[in-house]
Amino acid sequence: MKITWLGQAGLLFETGGKKILIDPYLSDSVAKIEPQNYRRQPIDERFLKIAPDMIVITHSHADHLDKETLCHYLSKDSSVTVLAPSGAWQEIRSFGGLKNNYVLFDNGTTWTESFASFRAVKAEHSDKNAIGVIVGENGKNYYITGDTLYNEKVFESLPDCAIDFLFLPINGVGNNMNFHDAKRFAQRIGAKHVIPIHFGMFDNVDPSEIKLKNKKVLPLYQSVIL
Amino acid sequence: MKITWLGQAGLLFETGGKKILIDPYLSDSVAKIEPQNYRRQPIDERFLKIAPDMIVITHSHADHLDKETLCHYLSKDSSVTVLAPSGAWQEIRSFGGLKNNYVLFDNGTTWTESFASFRAVKAEHSDKNAIGVIVGENGKNYYITGDTLYNEKVFESLPDCAIDFLFLPINGVGNNMNFHDAKRFAQRIGAKHVIPIHFGMFDNVDPSEIKLKNKKVLPLYQSVIL
Amino acid sequence: MKITWLGQAGLLFETGGKKILIDPYLSDSVAKIEPQNYRRQPIDERFLKIAPDMIVITHSHADHLDKETLCHYLSKDSSVTVLAPSGAWQEIRSFGGLKNNYVLFDNGTTWTESFASFRAVKAEHSDKNAIGVIVGENGKNYYITGDTLYNEKVFESLPDCAIDFLFLPINGVGNNMNFHDAKRFAQRIGAKHVIPIHFGMFDNVDPSEIKLKNKKVLPLYQSVIL
Repeated sequence: MKITWLGQAGLLFETGGKKILIDPYLSDSVAKIEPQNYRRQPIDERFLKIAPDMIVITHSHADHLDKETLCHYLSKDSSVTVLAPSGAWQEIRSFGGLKNNYVLFDNGTTWTESFASFRAVKAEHSDKNAIGVIVGENGKNYYITGDTLYNEKVFESLPDCAIDFLFLPINGVGNNMNFHDAKRFAQRIGAKHVIPIHFGMFDNVDPSEIKLKNKKVLPLYQSVIL
Repeated sequence: MKITWLGQAGLLFETGGKKILIDPYLSDSVAKIEPQNYRRQPIDERFLKIAPDMIVITHSHADHLDKETLCHYLSKDSSVTVLAPSGAWQEIRSFGGLKNNYVLFDNGTTWTESFASFRAVKAEHSDKNAIGVIVGENGKNYYITGDTLYNEKVFESLPDCAIDFLFLPINGVGNNMNFHDAKRFAQRIGAKHVIPIHFGMFDNVDPSEIKLKNKKVLPLYQSVIL
Repeated sequence: MKITWLGQAGLLFETGGKKILIDPYLSDSVAKIEPQNYRRQPIDERFLKIAPDMIVITHSHADHLDKETLCHYLSKDSSVTVLAPSGAWQEIRSFGGLKNNYVLFDNGTTWTESFASFRAVKAEHSDKNAIGVIVGENGKNYYITGDTLYNEKVFESLPDCAIDFLFLPINGVGNNMNFHDAKRFAQRIGAKHVIPIHFGMFDNVDPSEIKLKNKKVLPLYQSVIL
């Protein structure tokens, strides 16, 4: 899988010519409501011009479901399969478009395409419908936890499968895990590789403070093969 | 059991002189709200003239709970037992009629008649009260999933019984399973026979795209014995 | 336990000089709203003059929480412990009275007195807060299901204890079990004795149609020792 970190929780997955966007935040819209949460990272406008096949939104907060970003992908003429949990689903489907397929994606649901599968799992967050997602492709499992605290219900919701790559928040504010709990989370999951995300956008969090041998910090806006 | 597919999710079950209608959609009412969702199938008016003993409604969406169809069956003088989950139940009981028995039919409830039993199970859909129903008759189980995605909570809600005939949506939009997940669903249920429904009314979906050896496509408006 | 059936779901339990009323309906108030649901049974005014120690209300429908009946028992000067689930509790506490104790009695709660214990269990009904109650006294368990359909969540809510006497609705309308499901319910509970209630008030239902060897039909307004 070709993977590009877009900053904050934004990810672009590419496989077999298909483009999957997860929680893209490529604007400064949050700062209009919360001035202290201005972007510390530039916007790479190349990523506003792509035509995604799928968009996955993990919850309704504005740095995950960002209408100023999404309006570049969703229109009357686009053909996108959009996966979003209750709340976010009601919000994002207001983009309309008869060729877009807005799929309710609550904890427990699997949506399968020929190129990848998507399983919604629980996230424990202030949006109580928040989810994480496990993307299955070519025999590998990529688990993006979504914004979450360390909660037993998250573990109970997970299918019995090995996780190859774990993407998780480490910023410790806004109902996300801090370094300690993110480390415990990663160890409990037993993922082969751990990728910290959700830092550097509204803060100066240093991912080197999370001590894990199998940690991998992705370079911003540069694709890697994972 | 004598079974007639009425198009979309509509089914007529007949046994021992009793008539059971499930989600009949025999109008073009949806097109008034969503013009693109006009009927692609004719209305066979014979089925508007029957006098059902029971009506099962799986959820409140207009192609399942269609007042323009239901007004042919429910009146002050009819004697129908109506099973419907929360939301749909509140809506359909507005037809009134002192001899009609409107039964709340949420996930987990069984309603038994001498000629058949009806068990409500979970469906995962944008109407969060949506159900599926397992009809038990003469030692056989007919499982109509209702509109649903592939979700673990659906499987958890199922009683421990073999399914002889599985009726499930395959259209892949409007929070229904696509071919991939419908096939996985059928294989996990282990049904002896799989009957795709919920296609051909608002779309050109081709049921031959779902590859299952035990698949059976019902002819429209023609009764079969299953 | 000395038990008197008051018609419909009304019961008077007496033990050790204490009087417990459950869902007393001793008026014709329902007929004012629903003329077809007029009383088919006389009112025995003796039972309006008692001073109960406890009142248990299983849900908010007017043949269970009947203000025209309850005003005979609840006043500024009465000393009654009232157990009622959400909804019914908000409604009944409007009777006030500083010596009355209005206890919220939702599924899962146990309230214990020296003479008896009361355990709230789930009922599946159109009042979604509806409960049943298991009265424990002198080593025996009396389970009054409340108005309910046959639903798995009811069975899941039950404590692991033998039921000596099971009181259950059999009228088959208004979201109550019919004969078939009431019989299945009784068999699944495995109660030693089964007592049909909730018939004869608004209908001509004949309890002899429910075939159970351990069935006991109580005489109206006559106390029996159970």
